[in-house]
Amino acid sequence: MPERIIDIGEFGLIRRIRDLLNREGRRSERVTLGIGDDTASFLPRPGYELLVTCDCLVEGRHYLPGRITPLHLGRRAMTLNISDIGAMGGKPLFALISIGLKAEALVQDIEEIYRGFLWELNPFGASIIGGNLTQSGNGMFIDITLIGEVEQGKGVRRSGARPGDVILVTGYLGQAAAGLKLLLQSPDDLSLRKHPLVKIYNAPSHRAYFGAAIAEAGLATAMIDTSDGFLGDLGHVCTESNVGAVLMKEKLPVSEALREAALDFHKDPYDFFLGESDDYELIITCQPDKVTLLCSLATRLGFPVPLTEIGRITAEAGNMIIIHTDGSRHSVNPSGWDHFRLKEED
Amino acid sequence: MPERIIDIGEFGLIRRIRDLLNREGRRSERVTLGIGDDTASFLPRPGYELLVTCDCLVEGRHYLPGRITPLHLGRRAMTLNISDIGAMGGKPLFALISIGLKAEALVQDIEEIYRGFLWELNPFGASIIGGNLTQSGNGMFIDITLIGEVEQGKGVRRSGARPGDVILVTGYLGQAAAGLKLLLQSPDDLSLRKHPLVKIYNAPSHRAYFGAAIAEAGLATAMIDTSDGFLGDLGHVCTESNVGAVLMKEKLPVSEALREAALDFHKDPYDFFLGESDDYELIITCQPDKVTLLCSLATRLGFPVPLTEIGRITAEAGNMIIIHTDGSRHSVNPSGWDHFRLKEED
Repeated sequence: MPERIIDIGEFGLIRRIRDLLNREGRRSERVTLGIGDDTASFLPRPGYELLVTCDCLVEGRHYLPGRITPLHLGRRAMTLNISDIGAMGGKPLFALISIGLKAEALVQDIEEIYRGFLWELNPFGASIIGGNLTQSGNGMFIDITLIGEVEQGKGVRRSGARPGDVILVTGYLGQAAAGLKLLLQSPDDLSLRKHPLVKIYNAPSHRAYFGAAIAEAGLATAMIDTSDGFLGDLGHVCTESNVGAVLMKEKLPVSEALREAALDFHKDPYDFFLGESDDYELIITCQPDKVTLLCSLATRLGFPVPLTEIGRITAEAGNMIIIHTDGSRHSVNPSGWDHFRLKEED
Repeated sequence: MPERIIDIGEFGLIRRIRDLLNREGRRSERVTLGIGDDTASFLPRPGYELLVTCDCLVEGRHYLPGRITPLHLGRRAMTLNISDIGAMGGKPLFALISIGLKAEALVQDIEEIYRGFLWELNPFGASIIGGNLTQSGNGMFIDITLIGEVEQGKGVRRSGARPGDVILVTGYLGQAAAGLKLLLQSPDDLSLRKHPLVKIYNAPSHRAYFGAAIAEAGLATAMIDTSDGFLGDLGHVCTESNVGAVLMKEKLPVSEALREAALDFHKDPYDFFLGESDDYELIITCQPDKVTLLCSLATRLGFPVPLTEIGRITAEAGNMIIIHTDGSRHSVNPSGWDHFRLKEED
């Protein structure tokens, strides 16, 4: 019979996780103390700022139990955090994992979740150095604190966009939202797992390598990941930079898969693109003379990053405008993801 | 009508918290970016190791809603983490706060929880630099990551105890457990709030100042806080140091208040002392010739710390023994707190 957590206890589970991390994870020489004491400790690197972020996945809120494999759950939770470090131009170093678990949960599922964490951390040589296991009768949650670093003074903030800057975006937005809609419409259709949009929803990726390369080259004035939805996050950049934005609708990179799905849903694909979605792409602003360099950088990484110029930063603080193909102008709100607001029905 | 979170939304709540922190909190010059971007960032100090820990409070598990004020809830959550940093000999610097909230929660209660965090952080000049707010339909949780620092090479671990070392403990253990038992026995008796044991349960304190002073003076071979219960944590020291322990029962410092309460409960006060309890005291091991210096250090802080010598470290790995007043020896297990194990009834 598969072991449950209640069978091996908290300290038994900690030992199992420690063994798994020793076997399958990386261990940086800068970690002076890992899991197993009151705190972990590490030596910082002179000349580098430390970046630190935390993001949480709650059962029933950010994922549906049984609709995601434990491995993918771990990958997703870590990807959210890596994306935040990458959006500052940093690289992840160390993670602390806090998990609330039901006592009946299977030990092998928890181990798979940790494999998901390592899947995302190992390519960076980053490691899990601490954490906390808590019994939670009310459903599971995974809260990750991720520590990264960036060369001193090279971190890219939300607040640096200036009027006249070009706005660019990586990849294709709205695809994860469409994938989720497909899943919710046909919960029992297992063949959906192979649908490209569902795959993008189930296993999101981040642009942290590109973000770090941009920061190192000093090419961006502002950067943010799209975790609050495209307009929500462009809105954050506008607010923090005290600027506005004009977007060219025809330039927004809508993928063929999203266009087809939207047709089936009788929806406008741009609603998916602009609204709430679980894509972890980057919105980048830069001076116009840096666009060519940015594009060339996007093709020179291990795998090319789609990068599209979609608009300009303006001096009209807080004002976001979309210009349609016919030249008409339409004001838009940063109606991104706000966890606590009452939502209108679709 | 008092505002609920759902009335002001996630970003409204973040603004309110940011304002409160700017008004009532400290801001270190080493923080290069605080709350409001994808990540926070700070500059490490050369010659210091960074310490990092996380601990979580779950509603219904670690506290009962309505039985603790929001201010005390905040203080308690932060105290657990400060205690862990202090047990390594470090001082807290920066906190990240992840909270799962119900949408109906009152904004003023959340602000009070943050005041509780600051109550504990401000004396250290430590600050809240990041976090995450999540809607949780399943009850609240507070997960804190606390970053501290200790001079390089001066951190005190669990693994340094050596045979012949003296074992000391700060304060009086078991009091919080007795306070909780009082509360659970008479849930409606409001006068209990003034009972000294209930006060100790409701507003635990830490020994981080003493821990840091011990580390700076290089006096301890091992140190741990008693968050897993006295025997549980002494057991961790024995396991990680590969040693055993002999305790003199008559030397264990049982407070008068605990002795009286135990009499009323028809229980042995040592059961409270040795078992699971929410006291955040320190277990310290040191070489015999360091005891006098340690005791003198304990009286020289702003407020004197009760410090009691209770036993010796032995070479018998994993073997913990209590010597009773009549000279008889009794083997004990590290039956400390294990969140997931099935518990025997009292």
